[in-house]
Amino acid sequence: MIKSWAEVAPRLIAVAAGREPADCVIRGGKLVNVHSREVLDGWQVAIADGRFAYVGPDATHCIGERTEIIEAEGRYLIPGLCDAHMHIESGMLTPAEFARAVIPHGTTSMFTDPHEIANVLGLEGVRLMHDEAMMQPVNIFTQMPSCAPSAPGLETTGHEITPEDVAEAMTWPGIVGLGEMMNFPGVIHADPKMLAEIAATQAAGKTVGGHYASPDLGPAFHAYAAGGPADDHEGTCEADAVARVRQGMRSMMRLGSAWYDVESQITAVTEKGLDPRNFILCTDDSHSGTLVNDGHMNRVVRHAIACGADPLVALQMATINTATHFGLERELGSIAPGRRADVILTADLVTLPIERVIARGRTVAIGGRITVECPHLDWPDHARNTVHLGKVLAAADFEISAPDGANTVTAKVIGVIENQAPTKALTADLAVEGGIVQPDEGAGVAQIALVERHRGTGGVTNGFVSGFGYKGRMALASTVAHDSHHMIVVGTDRENMALAANRLGEVGGGITVFRDGREIALVELPIAGLMSEDRAETVALKADRMVEAMAECGCTLNNAYMQHSLLALVVIPELRISDLGLVDVTRFEITDLFEEA
Amino acid sequence: MIKSWAEVAPRLIAVAAGREPADCVIRGGKLVNVHSREVLDGWQVAIADGRFAYVGPDATHCIGERTEIIEAEGRYLIPGLCDAHMHIESGMLTPAEFARAVIPHGTTSMFTDPHEIANVLGLEGVRLMHDEAMMQPVNIFTQMPSCAPSAPGLETTGHEITPEDVAEAMTWPGIVGLGEMMNFPGVIHADPKMLAEIAATQAAGKTVGGHYASPDLGPAFHAYAAGGPADDHEGTCEADAVARVRQGMRSMMRLGSAWYDVESQITAVTEKGLDPRNFILCTDDSHSGTLVNDGHMNRVVRHAIACGADPLVALQMATINTATHFGLERELGSIAPGRRADVILTADLVTLPIERVIARGRTVAIGGRITVECPHLDWPDHARNTVHLGKVLAAADFEISAPDGANTVTAKVIGVIENQAPTKALTADLAVEGGIVQPDEGAGVAQIALVERHRGTGGVTNGFVSGFGYKGRMALASTVAHDSHHMIVVGTDRENMALAANRLGEVGGGITVFRDGREIALVELPIAGLMSEDRAETVALKADRMVEAMAECGCTLNNAYMQHSLLALVVIPELRISDLGLVDVTRFEITDLFEEA
Repeated sequence: MIKSWAEVAPRLIAVAAGREPADCVIRGGKLVNVHSREVLDGWQVAIADGRFAYVGPDATHCIGERTEIIEAEGRYLIPGLCDAHMHIESGMLTPAEFARAVIPHGTTSMFTDPHEIANVLGLEGVRLMHDEAMMQPVNIFTQMPSCAPSAPGLETTGHEITPEDVAEAMTWPGIVGLGEMMNFPGVIHADPKMLAEIAATQAAGKTVGGHYASPDLGPAFHAYAAGGPADDHEGTCEADAVARVRQGMRSMMRLGSAWYDVESQITAVTEKGLDPRNFILCTDDSHSGTLVNDGHMNRVVRHAIACGADPLVALQMATINTATHFGLERELGSIAPGRRADVILTADLVTLPIERVIARGRTVAIGGRITVECPHLDWPDHARNTVHLGKVLAAADFEISAPDGANTVTAKVIGVIENQAPTKALTADLAVEGGIVQPDEGAGVAQIALVERHRGTGGVTNGFVSGFGYKGRMALASTVAHDSHHMIVVGTDRENMALAANRLGEVGGGITVFRDGREIALVELPIAGLMSEDRAETVALKADRMVEAMAECGCTLNNAYMQHSLLALVVIPELRISDLGLVDVTRFEITDLFEEA
Repeated sequence: MIKSWAEVAPRLIAVAAGREPADCVIRGGKLVNVHSREVLDGWQVAIADGRFAYVGPDATHCIGERTEIIEAEGRYLIPGLCDAHMHIESGMLTPAEFARAVIPHGTTSMFTDPHEIANVLGLEGVRLMHDEAMMQPVNIFTQMPSCAPSAPGLETTGHEITPEDVAEAMTWPGIVGLGEMMNFPGVIHADPKMLAEIAATQAAGKTVGGHYASPDLGPAFHAYAAGGPADDHEGTCEADAVARVRQGMRSMMRLGSAWYDVESQITAVTEKGLDPRNFILCTDDSHSGTLVNDGHMNRVVRHAIACGADPLVALQMATINTATHFGLERELGSIAPGRRADVILTADLVTLPIERVIARGRTVAIGGRITVECPHLDWPDHARNTVHLGKVLAAADFEISAPDGANTVTAKVIGVIENQAPTKALTADLAVEGGIVQPDEGAGVAQIALVERHRGTGGVTNGFVSGFGYKGRMALASTVAHDSHHMIVVGTDRENMALAANRLGEVGGGITVFRDGREIALVELPIAGLMSEDRAETVALKADRMVEAMAECGCTLNNAYMQHSLLALVVIPELRISDLGLVDVTRFEITDLFEEA
């Protein structure tokens, strides 16, 4: 861990005053000052003990015999980039491997909400993520997950998070606040448990993350704001961003692997002219492939600039605005005395090539290649062994009995929408054979099953889904199954569904695709059934193969694995599945599989 | 004390959602939103339990039978104004009476550094100020004084402040940070005591106030910034303001009774175009007369606008910028849900008439008249009895013996400069009569004495001062004697000096003017010899009379009482006086009164 400013202040002062040599001096660059919003040509920085000691026109007096000199050769010095809200688990990587993947992209600070593992392993899972995060050479702060389960009464998670858990987590060194308060109906209705979590966070002087996933900007939204969340990243249009900032919340605009909410919101600044200080950039969710091929926060900043933001304003949105939001403006997010020496050398403020990354005063990446180790936690066995099926599943476990004597039924069907998180509540008339309702390849209706995997109850909830376009005899199973992370199996054939489910039981979780009784793709995710300890490149290749396999099975949608993994997300309309049954997410209640006659 | 957001969140939510009626609704106005930097025409606010519950286009759903309705009738709603750095003692008023004076001017939050009383009564004095501050209907936060004595080794204060005192104070409810770190040479030289105070403040997550009173913007300044101070209000020119912001400090620009540092610095924003978020307005020191006749933060904001600042930007500098700086952006400084309901109704954003002031949801002033009580602390006797002379002083105590056998001497003389805090180190050839050096009315040289008053040692340090222009037989004595607050007596006549000093011993401190053996003006300041419990109007009248009396004694300078009270301020060049002797404040050492032959 980096020493505090106070611990190293005597040395920082001595270096700035010229009484002691710096560890490192960077000169010959153009410094981007995000406090004043200026480019300061020729400004130099001196670093000591991982922090900036001197930032000014001439650091010559800070140079001693053993001072490392970095010649910027006309490049810009920009602060290391901050991701204000994100879930590491979305990359299917551990914190260490996520860090390894993003450091070359210039990300030096992340505000992470380990919401997924909290559903599987509870507070201990959060602590494990927190602990591996603290081992990294960059700054990974943890937001304590607020909502496990996300939808109390509609699902059963592996563990639950309580206000007492939140209060305890607030004492951990890497905890920066409360993770997104997704239970917005709970806040609006003053649910004591949700308010107790917020209160514990406020009492600790930390930041309450918001998540208001509704287009309703009327009194319900105002009631949510009155409950205490300090930010929100669920806005999708300019009016959303404006509304949040006007309520004294910060608008976090995200560009994730599947989120495109910057372009539609940043006009609040670029066209409407609002004070930019309350706008922040984040990714929320990045898949490994995005990290490998496209980037991370550098991608978001470039995109914001391409959307018309002034480059210095865009950089503020990914540096000092974020730091200020989390009460860390004197710790990071700028190139100024006392702050962690996180700095990027780049030749261009628009295209933003990440040529050299320095974190805590140490060069951590050059030319896109990481130059440091990202240590792995020794994950305990019970965190690697979380897929408890309770039995070997058989095709019969996926049989859906028709009502007595019925020859056809009208069943509710979860309708997947390409590139979107919401589903449609559809219906289909399905044939019954031998008392068992059959999927309908012609109509595009496959089976879906939610397989309980936390407690080994052997429970399987069956239903129907349409939209993937699967043909032939196949099944796809995944233990990434937001937010409760049981197992979601979608298939056209019950034998293949059983094979796929059992296979994930064998490998300890992940994603598998079976076709004609044979596994054609596998992504092993042994940590909590959510994450791999492999490198991002490896996981991305396996994930690519998995998406290919989906296509081979007839899926015509753009990367529909996201839709697959969200089919149990019982907080986003309209129809979902959980271990408790089919869920009507417009009325927030369990609903029957069959339409009433 | 106002309840926390968390305590009242259920009600705020219920009001915003329309389930419960608000205590108060303000409608028909134009709301100034300092988050988005917009005027929102027609926006309404609903208040409950002293906090904003709803801020939006229509609060009709928040109105119940018993909801008070305030019709803004087209006026602007602006957040209550914040004074980011100030010394209550400068008004010679207690916190209660200071609050009473400034509330009608729209000041609803003050960040006060009770540095003066700390020198007299130490930590207990700070606590008394803090406690009276907490009793007020507006927000008075306390910055723990950092430097008592201001100049260790050059003066003896009534009490000293230690790092342990700082750590203890950080646990008090109204403490918001460390008061201005005036010992900037100490920081630059990494004085362990100063750094320990800064560290204790940082460890508590609070704000370290700065005070860098030097024009040197080279390595010394950078070393100071590396030591941790987060703001500075000693800048006097654009380059000062720019330099501070570039170092990640906030530039506090002051317009006090005698400070005029806004116009010369605000060009950093208005002309140079720097991001305004790091610029803050404050008063530092306001005399009672200024509060009575000219205003407080409303005066500063008006002035900033007159200097070319956009009115919304100027308002941000006195509201949200300040709140953010002190980590209170979710507590005050804007009109947004959850914040303390501090709001001003004004008909014009440029002239800024303060027509109605609401603090914590309650109307506290209308049309310049206060409508609430400002409760007084029951100050303990030892806080009222702080002038300990140890004896009755006589004219002989002010005699300055010449070196043996000298007929004339060349003496060092403190040269007062009109309207400025620094002094000049002058010399004068003075006559000796009966072995005693004589002042020289013709040359404008009077006597000055520093009378020890904290421990009753009977100590008197004598010297010479010029520039006031005093004629005839007179003396002015004051127990306001920055920063150690002994007693400063200036006079042309030793009899009158003794009378004046003894008089202040009788009344427990204050300011008195004697002429020809008769008191012609008196300002009683019984609390610590610094403050009156009278109203600002009363104190201002007495202070006016005192200034008149100075003129009657021949003083030709503009309100030179400030210069008088600063003659013992042994941190500002060039020559001062302390209980330890004459002080050369260019070399920071005690110096002889007489020039070497």
